[in-house]
Amino acid sequence: MDNLLNQLREELEEAFSELSIPDQPSNLYEPMRYIIGLGGKRIRPMLTLLGCQLMGGDRKRAIPQALAVEIFHNFTLVHDDIMDSADVRRGLPTVHKKWDKNIAILSGDGMLVVAYQYLMQAEAAKLSKLAEVFSITALEVCEGQQLDMDYAAQSSVSLEAYTYMIRRKTAVLLGGAMQLGAIIAGSTDKDLELIGRFAEDMGFAFQLRDDYLDSFGEQESFGKEIGGDIREGKRTWLTIKAYELASPAQRLRLDQAFASSDVNQRIEIVTSIYHELGVAAMLTAEIERYSKESAVALDAIDGNEEVKQQLRGLVAYLMGRMS
Amino acid sequence: MDNLLNQLREELEEAFSELSIPDQPSNLYEPMRYIIGLGGKRIRPMLTLLGCQLMGGDRKRAIPQALAVEIFHNFTLVHDDIMDSADVRRGLPTVHKKWDKNIAILSGDGMLVVAYQYLMQAEAAKLSKLAEVFSITALEVCEGQQLDMDYAAQSSVSLEAYTYMIRRKTAVLLGGAMQLGAIIAGSTDKDLELIGRFAEDMGFAFQLRDDYLDSFGEQESFGKEIGGDIREGKRTWLTIKAYELASPAQRLRLDQAFASSDVNQRIEIVTSIYHELGVAAMLTAEIERYSKESAVALDAIDGNEEVKQQLRGLVAYLMGRMS
Repeated sequence: MDNLLNQLREELEEAFSELSIPDQPSNLYEPMRYIIGLGGKRIRPMLTLLGCQLMGGDRKRAIPQALAVEIFHNFTLVHDDIMDSADVRRGLPTVHKKWDKNIAILSGDGMLVVAYQYLMQAEAAKLSKLAEVFSITALEVCEGQQLDMDYAAQSSVSLEAYTYMIRRKTAVLLGGAMQLGAIIAGSTDKDLELIGRFAEDMGFAFQLRDDYLDSFGEQESFGKEIGGDIREGKRTWLTIKAYELASPAQRLRLDQAFASSDVNQRIEIVTSIYHELGVAAMLTAEIERYSKESAVALDAIDGNEEVKQQLRGLVAYLMGRMS
Repeated sequence: MDNLLNQLREELEEAFSELSIPDQPSNLYEPMRYIIGLGGKRIRPMLTLLGCQLMGGDRKRAIPQALAVEIFHNFTLVHDDIMDSADVRRGLPTVHKKWDKNIAILSGDGMLVVAYQYLMQAEAAKLSKLAEVFSITALEVCEGQQLDMDYAAQSSVSLEAYTYMIRRKTAVLLGGAMQLGAIIAGSTDKDLELIGRFAEDMGFAFQLRDDYLDSFGEQESFGKEIGGDIREGKRTWLTIKAYELASPAQRLRLDQAFASSDVNQRIEIVTSIYHELGVAAMLTAEIERYSKESAVALDAIDGNEEVKQQLRGLVAYLMGRMS
């Protein structure tokens, strides 16, 4: 599996190095090269290539769509970083910090256009479907970001609303990415839907797993500091579920912990309430539910069995151990 | 001519009233309805419909592309208003004032996606060309906006650079708008190029005319206050040309006038230097040059003679009297 992923990543990095972005005006185009050059796991464009191969296509034909997805993803990072006032991304200054907000707005806009330029590099018969899937996905990502901002201003949000929002913000683009590759390979609508469900459920399970590990993981294997979400007072599946199940006394302790400036004590109290309520096991069950639904969708796809096996390996690789 | 324009405007307003924009999340979609609902001359979508008719197509078939162009134009207004810190548009608060900057960024992004959704409502064989023309035009508009911001930070700019920038900011979208309609009608590439040149040169002449009237027009027919550009210290074709031709003494008077807080005196001094240098006549010559080039391109188009005649009427209507 690692070999295939490395192979895909290499093909993608080569394509990225040949990206045709103009030079002038440099304040419009340089930020595009900068943010794309920051790298990342390139998981979305990989899914585009795998979606093509899964449905029997030559994955090289889906390279433009893979680039479109990654350019789109980077456009959302540039604009989200403005909205979230985030100064650092991947250890380097965000576009609006390195340049300024206006440049970040405009070069982001330009990236969305460039994404469509790559998306439309396909035979005529595929263009309508490519544009349809891409645009719907893009709007859903915008909806997720808007709901995230709306919810941030609310004192509480239901688990259902949170799930709806976080799926749009993080998972639908994985589904859309893979569907674009499948369209290039000439997939049926039925398989397209299954592919979308596979990648979206996988992405959502992966997102939940990240929340889980943040509170219950082991420092070494997680790579980030344990309790970071609680430290930042971030609203996650766990905080929402805990508030939902908490007794009045536990709710008071949660409120006090999140209001306290002693972050180490905050992490200690919130984590202990998580244990009292048993939310870790509930989240594990939720992750398994989505992983399973993802696997069921994958099984049902009328695609290349070898690629399906590789995708199962990818899921196992991404999900890793649950500890 | 007025009848045709009114007819087109009616058809467009009907189409706008049926625009399918979702309801939720309202902070994403309500600003789209708001800015599009502010109205305007709808000159760009009219050109799309006329471009289709000119090349022998049924203009109703180009309605989705006409909407795409106007939605794109409105997206640029929303983001430009953030960048320019403009609080009022068409007498009402701009999106970032009525909501906030983050909402304006995100709903603008969404509008660009919705614009592509409408653009792609056409038969498969036309999609590649539609996307190509639209995306190139969109990037040129972004380039114009970026150059405008770049030049604002510079103490001087050449007339050539200014012309390049202002054509991108204001004229290329008129060319692109009309080309989209022509593509729907099945225009040849040769006619497409002529159509682009006609509308772009017309748009640029119109923009220069606006600069002219701002300094030399008559209050009543212009509708805006005479000298507004000078009052705001705006860099226009006239200021650049005046600085280019000014003697050291005149340059000093210009510098002092623009540095002065007495705006009435500023208008008086700058206008008198314009007269000393004869820049009004030079600008008139420039406007006539572009109007003529626009007319030559229109004549050369292998299109419907009746529509060509109507377009000549449109140009005369838009250009009005030069006083």
